Amino acid sequence: MSSVDSLARLADVIESRKPANGGDPGKSYVARLLHKGPDAFLKKIGEEATEVVMAAKDADHGGDAGKIVNEVADLWFHSMIALAHYGLKPADVIAELERREGLSGLEEKALRKASARERGAE
Amino acid sequence: MSSVDSLARLADVIESRKPANGGDPGKSYVARLLHKGPDAFLKKIGEEATEVVMAAKDADHGGDAGKIVNEVADLWFHSMIALAHYGLKPADVIAELERREGLSGLEEKALRKASARERGAE
Amino acid sequence: MSSVDSLARLADVIESRKPANGGDPGKSYVARLLHKGPDAFLKKIGEEATEVVMAAKDADHGGDAGKIVNEVADLWFHSMIALAHYGLKPADVIAELERREGLSGLEEKALRKASARERGAE
Amino acid sequence: MSSVDSLARLADVIESRKPANGGDPGKSYVARLLHKGPDAFLKKIGEEATEVVMAAKDADHGGDAGKIVNEVADLWFHSMIALAHYGLKPADVIAELERREGLSGLEEKALRKASARERGAE
Repeated sequence: MSSVDSLARLADVIESRKPANGGDPGKSYVARLLHKGPDAFLKKIGEEATEVVMAAKDADHGGDAGKIVNEVADLWFHSMIALAHYGLKPADVIAELERREGLSGLEEKALRKASARERGAE
Repeated sequence: MSSVDSLARLADVIESRKPANGGDPGKSYVARLLHKGPDAFLKKIGEEATEVVMAAKDADHGGDAGKIVNEVADLWFHSMIALAHYGLKPADVIAELERREGLSGLEEKALRKASARERGAE
Repeated sequence: MSSVDSLARLADVIESRKPANGGDPGKSYVARLLHKGPDAFLKKIGEEATEVVMAAKDADHGGDAGKIVNEVADLWFHSMIALAHYGLKPADVIAELERREGLSGLEEKALRKASARERGAE
Repeated sequence: MSSVDSLARLADVIESRKPANGGDPGKSYVARLLHKGPDAFLKKIGEEATEVVMAAKDADHGGDAGKIVNEVADLWFHSMIALAHYGLKPADVIAELERREGLSGLEEKALRKASARERGAE
């Protein structure tokens, strides 16, 4: 199965957990987050990003790099819950990454932002 | 093009930007981050997570939800730079998401963690 | 000099950097952040929090704990820029910490939140 | 009571919650965080920073700015738990803020960093 299929399937399951689609906050972690509303899952994005950073720093100091995979999975997973809440899909994110025409495009954007930052800092 | 190809292709380009692979910090944003080392791109993960949260809050208050897509793309992109640095690939993250057997598995994990947290909090 | 004076004095200087008070974005970092608006300094709070975490992880692995002081100073400093923008003062934060009647009050609040979380997770 | 006294008193209570000082993880939230170790309270710093950002964004859109005070109090409180763990005190942070000679010093540092970033980005 391709990545796009995996992410799309996961997005479908998240979609089914929305209160409007019958998701039960008593049985499902995702349904509970969606039921609580944005602050609940947005807070998790900040928390999971921090956990990625901590796992990476541990790896820098000899820890198991595999833990980074788990934390990035948690981060992307909670990002997908947010996407679902706002009617967006991981395919939109992939399309945006593609739209930037691969890394060169991304780098152009990043360099543009860096240049703008420099101009702003002058 | 399927997502697995998109993400794998993007990962390949990031890989080519590593100093060891001839990435030029003077020409490439990714090469520069990889050259600076972990703190440079880990800090970006914290920053981009915050930007996702801000875009989402703006959308809550009537802003353009499309901005969330851009910010999640930035977050995932910088996650992939970190993955590359530690010899990991987005396919590892996708595999982890699949390994959890779709959302039910993820929810089991989340509920397990929530239960552990409750026990710890008793 | 007492801390209340230090923090209040710092808050006064930040106040003077507001565009409405003649702060010059071309000369002052704080004036520039305040001129750019909330997203600029809120993003920094996310970034500086991440830097605190990275410095702490480095200290866990034998690094210089003194770096944590610098990063917490950056975090509190940018928090104070946000406070100023919203018409708040560090004294309000100190008063809130006092209002909670020292740590016992804070712990009661934290335990209350933990309990609420547990109930929500049931 | 001055801010410095308030923060110092709070730091003393946190100090007394360390496992080595008899803090009881079963009774005290702070003792529990300190007992669990750095990842537990560092993760909270990332989470609380995100909550500051969310409260600020709500205030931008007409919400109660007072909530920002609560969230900054939570952020500073968890920063102080981290400081305690690493043998540091809020007075060290205040001293660092003073050492930078008020805002002008802070701005010099920030401008220096911005300049370094620009040079790095060239």
